[in-house]
Amino acid sequence: MSFSAPLNEVIAALGGDLVGASDLRIARIGPLEGADAATIAFLANPRYRSQLSASQAGCVIVGPAMAEAAAERGGAYIVTPDPYLYFARLTQWWAARVRPSAPARIHPSAVIDPDAELGEGVDIGPLAVIEAGVRIAAGARIGAHCVLERGASVGADSRLAPRVTLGFDCRIGARCIVHSGAVIGADGFGFAPTKSDDGQGRWEKIEQLGAVVIGDDVEIGANSCIDRGALGDTVLEDGVKLDNLVQIGHNVRVGAHTAMAGCAGVAGSAVIGRHCTVGGGAIVLGHLSLADGVHVSAATVVTRSIAKPGTYSGVFPFDDNASWEKNAATLRQLHALRERLRALEKKL
Amino acid sequence: MSFSAPLNEVIAALGGDLVGASDLRIARIGPLEGADAATIAFLANPRYRSQLSASQAGCVIVGPAMAEAAAERGGAYIVTPDPYLYFARLTQWWAARVRPSAPARIHPSAVIDPDAELGEGVDIGPLAVIEAGVRIAAGARIGAHCVLERGASVGADSRLAPRVTLGFDCRIGARCIVHSGAVIGADGFGFAPTKSDDGQGRWEKIEQLGAVVIGDDVEIGANSCIDRGALGDTVLEDGVKLDNLVQIGHNVRVGAHTAMAGCAGVAGSAVIGRHCTVGGGAIVLGHLSLADGVHVSAATVVTRSIAKPGTYSGVFPFDDNASWEKNAATLRQLHALRERLRALEKKL
Amino acid sequence: MSFSAPLNEVIAALGGDLVGASDLRIARIGPLEGADAATIAFLANPRYRSQLSASQAGCVIVGPAMAEAAAERGGAYIVTPDPYLYFARLTQWWAARVRPSAPARIHPSAVIDPDAELGEGVDIGPLAVIEAGVRIAAGARIGAHCVLERGASVGADSRLAPRVTLGFDCRIGARCIVHSGAVIGADGFGFAPTKSDDGQGRWEKIEQLGAVVIGDDVEIGANSCIDRGALGDTVLEDGVKLDNLVQIGHNVRVGAHTAMAGCAGVAGSAVIGRHCTVGGGAIVLGHLSLADGVHVSAATVVTRSIAKPGTYSGVFPFDDNASWEKNAATLRQLHALRERLRALEKKL
Repeated sequence: MSFSAPLNEVIAALGGDLVGASDLRIARIGPLEGADAATIAFLANPRYRSQLSASQAGCVIVGPAMAEAAAERGGAYIVTPDPYLYFARLTQWWAARVRPSAPARIHPSAVIDPDAELGEGVDIGPLAVIEAGVRIAAGARIGAHCVLERGASVGADSRLAPRVTLGFDCRIGARCIVHSGAVIGADGFGFAPTKSDDGQGRWEKIEQLGAVVIGDDVEIGANSCIDRGALGDTVLEDGVKLDNLVQIGHNVRVGAHTAMAGCAGVAGSAVIGRHCTVGGGAIVLGHLSLADGVHVSAATVVTRSIAKPGTYSGVFPFDDNASWEKNAATLRQLHALRERLRALEKKL
Repeated sequence: MSFSAPLNEVIAALGGDLVGASDLRIARIGPLEGADAATIAFLANPRYRSQLSASQAGCVIVGPAMAEAAAERGGAYIVTPDPYLYFARLTQWWAARVRPSAPARIHPSAVIDPDAELGEGVDIGPLAVIEAGVRIAAGARIGAHCVLERGASVGADSRLAPRVTLGFDCRIGARCIVHSGAVIGADGFGFAPTKSDDGQGRWEKIEQLGAVVIGDDVEIGANSCIDRGALGDTVLEDGVKLDNLVQIGHNVRVGAHTAMAGCAGVAGSAVIGRHCTVGGGAIVLGHLSLADGVHVSAATVVTRSIAKPGTYSGVFPFDDNASWEKNAATLRQLHALRERLRALEKKL
Repeated sequence: MSFSAPLNEVIAALGGDLVGASDLRIARIGPLEGADAATIAFLANPRYRSQLSASQAGCVIVGPAMAEAAAERGGAYIVTPDPYLYFARLTQWWAARVRPSAPARIHPSAVIDPDAELGEGVDIGPLAVIEAGVRIAAGARIGAHCVLERGASVGADSRLAPRVTLGFDCRIGARCIVHSGAVIGADGFGFAPTKSDDGQGRWEKIEQLGAVVIGDDVEIGANSCIDRGALGDTVLEDGVKLDNLVQIGHNVRVGAHTAMAGCAGVAGSAVIGRHCTVGGGAIVLGHLSLADGVHVSAATVVTRSIAKPGTYSGVFPFDDNASWEKNAATLRQLHALRERLRALEKKL
C-alpha cells in the first residue's frame, strides 16, 4: 500500500476538530505503539493514556476528555465525541481508496440461467452459478464460485465473497456481507425416530420446507451455516453480525443488531433477542428464548431461557493441570460434600 | 408455494384414519399455533394438548390417545400410531410435490474425466469436477462445484449438495445426503514430534494412507469434516446423521443410526456405538469407546470410555455473571474446602 | 493398493538396522494388531509390548530398548532410535509411491489473470480462479476450485487442496498444505458500537486493512478460518499445524511449531507462543498472551494470559446425568457453601 492522503481530506470526509498540521500526509492507520510520523492512531480507552504520550504517531484521534493530553504530547490530533467510531469510519474511507471495487462485470465463465433477474450494476464473479428465478438487486456483487439456487434473492449493494452457497428460496437483504464458505439454507437437522422391520431404531428425515430470511446490513462470517426452517423460516433480523464458523439451527430467530463471535452455536427454534451478544464458542440450546440485551460470555452453555437483560456466564475456570485434576475430582462429590456440611451444621 | 392437495390424497399415500372432510384442500404444513383452515398440523406430545383445542388448523394428526380430544375440537383429524413419524413422512410427500427434482442432466460445464463411470440417470451440476476412476451409481445427483477426486465413489440415489469435496478413494453408500461445504477425506491430523538440527522441536507429517467409508442412508451437514484414516479407514456406518460443522477425526468409527448435533467433535480413533446421540458442541476425546445407546448431552466433554448405555452430562451451569464469578473462584479452592470439611468432621 | 516393496528398499531410503529377511516384500503399513506377514508395523510405546509378541507382522519397527523383545518374537525387525518418527517417514515414502503426484499442468478451465505470475512446474486444477497480481512459486499445486484473490502469494512446493480461498494480499510460505474449504483472509470481526438516529444501538464496520502471513511448513485443516488483521497482519509462524474447523481471529500471532487440534478457536489479538499445543475445542480469549511451551487441554477456555510453560486444563468432569445434575445444582451454591464452612470453622 503506497497510498497516502493529507489529513485535511480526512477531516473533510469525516469531520472532527483537527489541531495541528493539516497538510500532514497520512500513509497508514495504526496502533499508538509503534506508530511513526505518517501514522494516524486513536485513543478510545483512557486506560491507554500512557501510550498516547509515548506515541510517535503523526496524528492521534481522541475524545474531548483526552484533548489536553493530546495537546501536551505535541503533534496533530483530531477531537471527536467517539474516537472508536471515528476510527471505524476512517477504515471505511481508507479501504474505499486503497482497494476500490473493480468495475462491475458479468464474468463470461459464470453459469447464469436466463430466468435469473440481475439488477443494474450487478457484478458476477468467475464460475459463479446462478439458477432460475434468482433475483439480484442493483449494485450487488456475487463472488467467484458462489452458488445461488433457484428462487434465491440478494438485496441491493450486498456482497457475497467467493464460495458462498445461498440455498433455494433464501433471501438476503440490502448491504449485507457474506464471507467465503458460508452456507445459507442447508437442511435443518430434523428426524423422527422410528424402527426398521427388525425392531432396530433409525431416523426418518423431516424435509425442511422453510427457507432463510436475512435482513439488511447483516454480516455473516466465513464457513458459518444458517439452516433453513422446518416449516417456517429461519430469520436473521437487520444488523445482525455473525463471526466465522457460527451455527444457526432451523427456525431460529436472531434479533436485530445482535452479534455472535466465532464458533458460537444456536440450536433449533431458539429465539435470541435484539442487541444481544454471544461470545465465542458459546452455545444456546434449542427452543429457548433470550430477552433483548442479553450478553452471553464466551464458551457459556445456555440451558434455559433468559428473561432479564444482563451478562451471563458459565465456564469452568482453567488452572494448571494438577490443580484442575484435584478440583475436578472433588467436584464429582460436591453434592455429597454439601450433605456432609449439613450434617455438621445440624450437629452444632 | 401455491401448491395444495386434498386430504384424501395424503391418506392414500401415507395411510392413517381420517375423520372429517376428506375433500378439504391442504395448502401448508404448520404448527398448531397460528394454523389456518388450510393448514395440516400435528400433536406428538400430549403436553401440548391445550394447543390442540385452540388450533384453527384444518386438519390435525394425532395419536390414538388424543383422538377424543381431536374430536372435541371439531374439524378433520387423522389418527395414526406415531404422529411425529407421520408428520415426517408427510414432509417428504410434500417436498416431492412442492419441489420435484429437475430431470437429470450432465451439465456441459462440468469437468468429467473420461475414466469416470456414471450410472443411469446420474445428475452432474454445473462446474463439478469428476476425476478419473470415480464411480457414481444410478440416480445419484452431484451438485454444482462438487469435487470428486480420483477413485471416489457415490452410491445409488445419493445426493451431494453444491460445493462438497469427496477425497480420493473415499466411498459414500446409497441414499446419502451431503450438504454444502462438507469435506470428506481431508488428511487426518497426524504428526510425529521430532527435532531440527538446532535442537528445536518440530512436527513430521504422517501421511494419511486410509480413506473414508460411509454406509447407506447417512446424512452429513454443511461444512462438516470427516478425515481419512491414517492406516485403515474412517467409518460411518449405515443411517448415521451428522449436523453442520461436525468434526470426525481419522480412524473414528461411528456406529449405525447414531446422530450428532452441530459443532460436535470426535477426536481420532474414537469408536462410537450404534444408536448413540451426541449433543451440540460435545467433544469425544481420542481413542475412547462409547457403548451402543450412549447419549452425550450438549457441550459435554467425554474424557474416558463409557461402557454402559445411558445419558451423560458435564456442563458448567451458567448463571448471572456475578454469581458465576463467585462460584468459579471458589471452585478453584474446592479440593482445599474438602480438606477443611474433613478436618472439621474429625474434630467432632 | 496393490503396491508392494522389498524391505531393503525401505532401509535404503530411511536407514535403520534391519534384522531378518531383507527380501521380504511389504504390502501395507498397519498396526501390530491384525497385521499379517506382508505388513510392516511399529512399536513406539513400551506399554504395547504385549502386542508386539502376539503380532503376525512381517516386520516391526522398534527402538533399541525393544530390540531384544523383537528378536524373541522372531521375524524381521528394524531398530531405530525413534520408531514413531521412522514410521512417519515411512508413510511419506509410501505415499510418494502409492499415489505419486500427477505431472503438473495448467488446467484449461482455470480462470487465470494474465497478470498472475506462475513459477516453474506450477499445477493449477480445473476451474481454479487466479486473480491479477497473484504469485505462485515453483512447484506449488493449486487444487480445483481454489480462489486466489489479487496480490495473494503461495510459496514453492506448497499444496492447496480443492476449494481453498486465499484472500487478497495474503501470503503462504513454502511447503505448506492447506486442506479443502479453508478460508484464509476473510475479514476479522470488528465493529464499533454506535447508535442510529432513533437512539437504537447498531454496529459500524471496521474495515480490516491487514492481511494474513503464513510461514513455511504450515498445515491448515479443512474448513478452518484465518482472518485478516485489522491494521497489521495475522501471522502463523513456520511449522504451525492446525486441524480442521479451527478459527484464528484477526491480529493473532501463532508461534512457530505450535499445533492446534480440531474446533479450537483463538480470539482476536491473542499471541500464542512457540511449541505450544491447543487441544480440540479449546478456546483462547482475545488479547491474551501464552508463553512458549504452553499446553492447553482439550475444551479448556483460557481466560487470562499464561506466563509459564506447562499444561493447563479446565473442563467440567462429565458424569451420568443424574449425578451431574446434583453436582451442577450444588455448584451454583458453592460460594455460599464456603461461607457456611467458614462459619462452622469459626464456631469451633
